[in-house]
Amino acid sequence: MREEVGFSFELTDSDGRTAARRGFISTPHGMAETPLFMPVATQATVKAMRPEQVADLGFRVVLANAYHLMLRPGVEVVADAGGVAAFMGWEGPVLTDSGGYQVMSLGSGVRITPEGAHFRSHLDGSSVFLSPESSMEAQAALGADIAMALDECLPHGADRSTTEASLALNADWARRCLAAHHAEGQALFGIVQGGTHPDLRERGADLMAPLGFAGFGLGGLSVGEPRGLTLELVERTVARLPAERPRYLMGVGDPAGLLGAIALGVDMFDSVLPTRLARNASALVGYGRLNLRNACYGRDATPLDPDCDCYTCSGFTRAYLRHLVMAKEILGFHLLTVHNLRSVSRLLERAREAIRDGDLDTLLRESHADRELRR
Amino acid sequence: MREEVGFSFELTDSDGRTAARRGFISTPHGMAETPLFMPVATQATVKAMRPEQVADLGFRVVLANAYHLMLRPGVEVVADAGGVAAFMGWEGPVLTDSGGYQVMSLGSGVRITPEGAHFRSHLDGSSVFLSPESSMEAQAALGADIAMALDECLPHGADRSTTEASLALNADWARRCLAAHHAEGQALFGIVQGGTHPDLRERGADLMAPLGFAGFGLGGLSVGEPRGLTLELVERTVARLPAERPRYLMGVGDPAGLLGAIALGVDMFDSVLPTRLARNASALVGYGRLNLRNACYGRDATPLDPDCDCYTCSGFTRAYLRHLVMAKEILGFHLLTVHNLRSVSRLLERAREAIRDGDLDTLLRESHADRELRR
Repeated sequence: MREEVGFSFELTDSDGRTAARRGFISTPHGMAETPLFMPVATQATVKAMRPEQVADLGFRVVLANAYHLMLRPGVEVVADAGGVAAFMGWEGPVLTDSGGYQVMSLGSGVRITPEGAHFRSHLDGSSVFLSPESSMEAQAALGADIAMALDECLPHGADRSTTEASLALNADWARRCLAAHHAEGQALFGIVQGGTHPDLRERGADLMAPLGFAGFGLGGLSVGEPRGLTLELVERTVARLPAERPRYLMGVGDPAGLLGAIALGVDMFDSVLPTRLARNASALVGYGRLNLRNACYGRDATPLDPDCDCYTCSGFTRAYLRHLVMAKEILGFHLLTVHNLRSVSRLLERAREAIRDGDLDTLLRESHADRELRR
Repeated sequence: MREEVGFSFELTDSDGRTAARRGFISTPHGMAETPLFMPVATQATVKAMRPEQVADLGFRVVLANAYHLMLRPGVEVVADAGGVAAFMGWEGPVLTDSGGYQVMSLGSGVRITPEGAHFRSHLDGSSVFLSPESSMEAQAALGADIAMALDECLPHGADRSTTEASLALNADWARRCLAAHHAEGQALFGIVQGGTHPDLRERGADLMAPLGFAGFGLGGLSVGEPRGLTLELVERTVARLPAERPRYLMGVGDPAGLLGAIALGVDMFDSVLPTRLARNASALVGYGRLNLRNACYGRDATPLDPDCDCYTCSGFTRAYLRHLVMAKEILGFHLLTVHNLRSVSRLLERAREAIRDGDLDTLLRESHADRELRR
């Protein structure tokens, strides 16, 4: 454990030919090089993984969901344990998502008022009220190194006037989050919304940029719009945000999406993709995917990915992994999760090296991310 | 890997005051001290465990099910990989159960003829025929260090005349298994049945003892009869079996059952109990059980078992484990499996030490197993 008490972000390299940049964040629970990817520990566990196995795969920060932990086991239980990291045995920084996205995607009977979000728990139907103030309180109690402001997350395809109204509400909630944020050493990130309207994304960024957040999430993206549009919206947003603050593209984890956004100057990512694909028998191999339910792997004695250095690829054949998956054996989900997470961490390692070497273009071409970028 | 090509069993110690004995088996894939417990790798995986984690917990032999592997992924797939151990990455001996018990418990439309068992697969309803000869062939292809003879396993409570007829059939199948058994280095164990009729258990032992098996399973026990009766049937059986061959009580894994049978001279055990309990949120603690679904553990900051040296007890609280279990997180099943398996391996370690020290009585008293033994 380091002696720092606060959060800082430092840039060390930039790719000459793109907007990509390299650096590191420092938090009360340690440092992490950027660009970084955060495995998702929704319920205070990265699904099917021991905590130190996640670290051994090359990750330094995990993301936990304040929404889920508030509903189960309850913030007090986690606080009693000394916070999410201590509760789950994670020896590193934790970012907590505020719950705005989960209210929209999981809550029922959601009613948004100027005060906050009223909804019913997806677990037991009980009424819950989440406000900027209560979200800050919860994330402080959860002991996050990085907390996220509470935002209203509109469903994909929201029209222009709904989106404009939501931007105003989010700006108000953002100010209230900042006012209510007192957790020592904890950084608070704002979240820029704006739907799929490029000018509203810019307005969202303009509203958030001056408020004094330690970093900025880009929310509500990659939820159904074409990849090229996602990257255009990222590019427009990033252009309006302060260069010296980290930019965090929320919910993106596919190889081309990661590399495209890195080329636009994004520093942080999270996504359930690698862990969720694993539970669907799907492996990230190269820049593509391989589904072990396909009968052609039934007698395939090769590893998932011969170029991968992970535990799974070092010891097990596709035939065995397919057998585990077909038999719904827990070990199959674990082994695929290990591989998929390692696949993402290797990609980030390569991206950081490429930025240092001024050669991100090679990765962009390999992954075909270059085809989606406006150059 | 040792250079031996075959199977042997050597006795090194005996408890002065009980019939307990200590020794070791040698197999083509390594040695193991007895009395030993085999975690169950039904489908070529000890559920929720990496193979080397099972070894690290103190186990040397795992049990795989020929029945399950024949149906999925198919014996040829496993044989292609070089056998069960290579397929699943297990660096040690494997015992395969023949499938007699699974035919009875999982098959549908089961029809037993003098030739063998006709039944329908529990996976896809396809017709399967299992004979002593095909079982030997399958277990040879699976590369087991120890194969089990095919037996008819009667449902609990079978009457006397049914059981007598079954003993005769099993004796015939046993001879056919021995005649068909040619796998180099592989040991073949017979299985003594006889239901809950003490004299028929003795007759079953008398039928099997002279046939030349390398060891003897005691099958169809602990399936509903009182514990005292189980142990009486074990005692009567063991008395008729050659002292120099290992005795293997199939399907027993609870602490008092293990210790009671060890006191009667049993050398080997297997059971799904530790792994199955884990998936039911239940932990083996001391000689009892603790169910994490109980709300009283919601804020319990102590480990499952303060006396346990396992990974789970070293790093996680009951409150966290309960949270994982309530949220149906895979990590919860893994962590409970680790603990339960370690609980059993520690018990076996203590039993082996106690036999060496002539002090098994202490463990028998602690576990209350002594109350069920005829002394």
